[in-house]
Amino acid sequence: MLILTSNDIERFYTMKDAIAVDKQALKIYSQGNSDVPLRINFDMQKGQCLFMPAHIKGSDIVGIKIVSVFPDNPKLGKPSVPAQVLMLDPQTGEVCAMLDGTFVTQLRTGAVQGAATDLLARKNASRAVLIGTGGQAVSQLEAMLTVRSLTDVAIFDIDTQKAKQFTEEMKHRFAHFSTNLYFSENLDDDISQADIITSVTTSKVVTFNGEKVKPGTHINGVGAYTPEMHEIPECIVEKANIRVVDTKEGVFAEAGDIIDPIKQQLVSEDDFLELGDLVIDPTQCRLNEQQITLFKTVGTAVLDVYIGYDIYLKAKEKGIGTFL
Amino acid sequence: MLILTSNDIERFYTMKDAIAVDKQALKIYSQGNSDVPLRINFDMQKGQCLFMPAHIKGSDIVGIKIVSVFPDNPKLGKPSVPAQVLMLDPQTGEVCAMLDGTFVTQLRTGAVQGAATDLLARKNASRAVLIGTGGQAVSQLEAMLTVRSLTDVAIFDIDTQKAKQFTEEMKHRFAHFSTNLYFSENLDDDISQADIITSVTTSKVVTFNGEKVKPGTHINGVGAYTPEMHEIPECIVEKANIRVVDTKEGVFAEAGDIIDPIKQQLVSEDDFLELGDLVIDPTQCRLNEQQITLFKTVGTAVLDVYIGYDIYLKAKEKGIGTFL
Repeated sequence: MLILTSNDIERFYTMKDAIAVDKQALKIYSQGNSDVPLRINFDMQKGQCLFMPAHIKGSDIVGIKIVSVFPDNPKLGKPSVPAQVLMLDPQTGEVCAMLDGTFVTQLRTGAVQGAATDLLARKNASRAVLIGTGGQAVSQLEAMLTVRSLTDVAIFDIDTQKAKQFTEEMKHRFAHFSTNLYFSENLDDDISQADIITSVTTSKVVTFNGEKVKPGTHINGVGAYTPEMHEIPECIVEKANIRVVDTKEGVFAEAGDIIDPIKQQLVSEDDFLELGDLVIDPTQCRLNEQQITLFKTVGTAVLDVYIGYDIYLKAKEKGIGTFL
Repeated sequence: MLILTSNDIERFYTMKDAIAVDKQALKIYSQGNSDVPLRINFDMQKGQCLFMPAHIKGSDIVGIKIVSVFPDNPKLGKPSVPAQVLMLDPQTGEVCAMLDGTFVTQLRTGAVQGAATDLLARKNASRAVLIGTGGQAVSQLEAMLTVRSLTDVAIFDIDTQKAKQFTEEMKHRFAHFSTNLYFSENLDDDISQADIITSVTTSKVVTFNGEKVKPGTHINGVGAYTPEMHEIPECIVEKANIRVVDTKEGVFAEAGDIIDPIKQQLVSEDDFLELGDLVIDPTQCRLNEQQITLFKTVGTAVLDVYIGYDIYLKAKEKGIGTFL
């Protein structure tokens, strides 16, 4: 069994790799070539444990993400969402790899937005806004920087102090992109100039003014993953020309961002495509420079398992990780 | 995370420990204090992968057994049923231990028979028969030897050569029990003298003549785990005075041994108790020396997870295993 820590994976696996793999995974999903049972959820006294297995048919890639949500963990100096991804060998059924699941989750969730942004944002997009500076924000920023040559990214958080600190850290971390990263002093102004907007919060109220969004903008809703959470303005969902989700099953069941406007009959389920549909048929992507495009993701175990296996194969080839 | 191999576990964890823990686990199950979702099953080209999570309420013991059935593995020098048991820390939700699941399965399955034999066989039982000498047979033999002071155990398999070799190995392995282990040259004779009979095969036809079973005998059906498999004679199921299963849900859905006589209306579901019921109320055990008692098990993830956590705690206390 190969053990892969976040440090191991960071050494060789790029956001570009992850974006390519996420596209492929969602293509397989939308073609019906995966088997993703309902995730199993145990409510515990101090949190929740989730078991998320998936099977990619044909190639027989099988794995499971085990992820816990324990809000008090930081008090113990532990991550609040510890996770592991385990992969099985298609030839023998043995557990062949265990990967840091927190890192895999961040990577695949950044990458799925990167995939959507790559397929939907204008090729000449140059200005972006990132709303939310929590644990998922780094990979979201990296994904946007990876798929478009951005001149400026405005970074916002309702916690101003946190946003400023995050911005300074990111300037250092992503200096090689030569993009001007700055704390957004006036979110409305930055939204009105944005070509790409990514919101990654657990907010129960919309995180930006949808009326300020200009034609041609691409918007990603990456946070809000329960029916109670809602970060994307209804007017954006309504006026978007192309509305895309990672999986209809997941988003229509879990994402308040999309459930609410469907309930209000502003849109219907038929108005949405899956990201895998765009990979299969790219003619369904943006048609002109004026269209507003929207992507909403809540994640699926197919992403964890497909990228987990790709990381495992590449690590084995490069001799990275610890064999048990 | 603590990694525990079969060698690690064998160093300190006894069949007696396992039997006590299995009794407790099935008590918890029968009291409704566990949560055991339907196991998730992926059919692959070379075999099957099963994901079996369970949650013990109250103590918040949570874990999962990942087990594969790959019949061609022995050709590759690999076990045909590789397995791992992963345990989560109730306080943090982190994966805290990974145990050799093949070994845990053998141990808990031997122990559950030991628990039933301990609760149901006559105290003065001295002669036993073991039918089947596959991968599960060692722990089945050990469990019988552990709970009763046996003078003789007859060992049978339709593969005579295999049975003879197994018997020789067991004579050496279990020499400390001072029990006469011998290859059964005449199964009918041995059955007619047996106080305890344990069948552990995947046979689709009954493995012994039920008419030869004498009053007072206790019978364990440990193999046959699908509706197509059937090792226990119908007449035994019909004439047993006490019929016990590990879990009604599992046995009534999976065990041909019990499904068939219920279909034939020889018995009804109401004629069965769960082993946990006997632990809760021992007055439901054997009443006299003449009763025939029957136990049928197909296993449950509660056994894997409860024993897995007990092994983990004891190993940590003793400083055994490898920390990752």
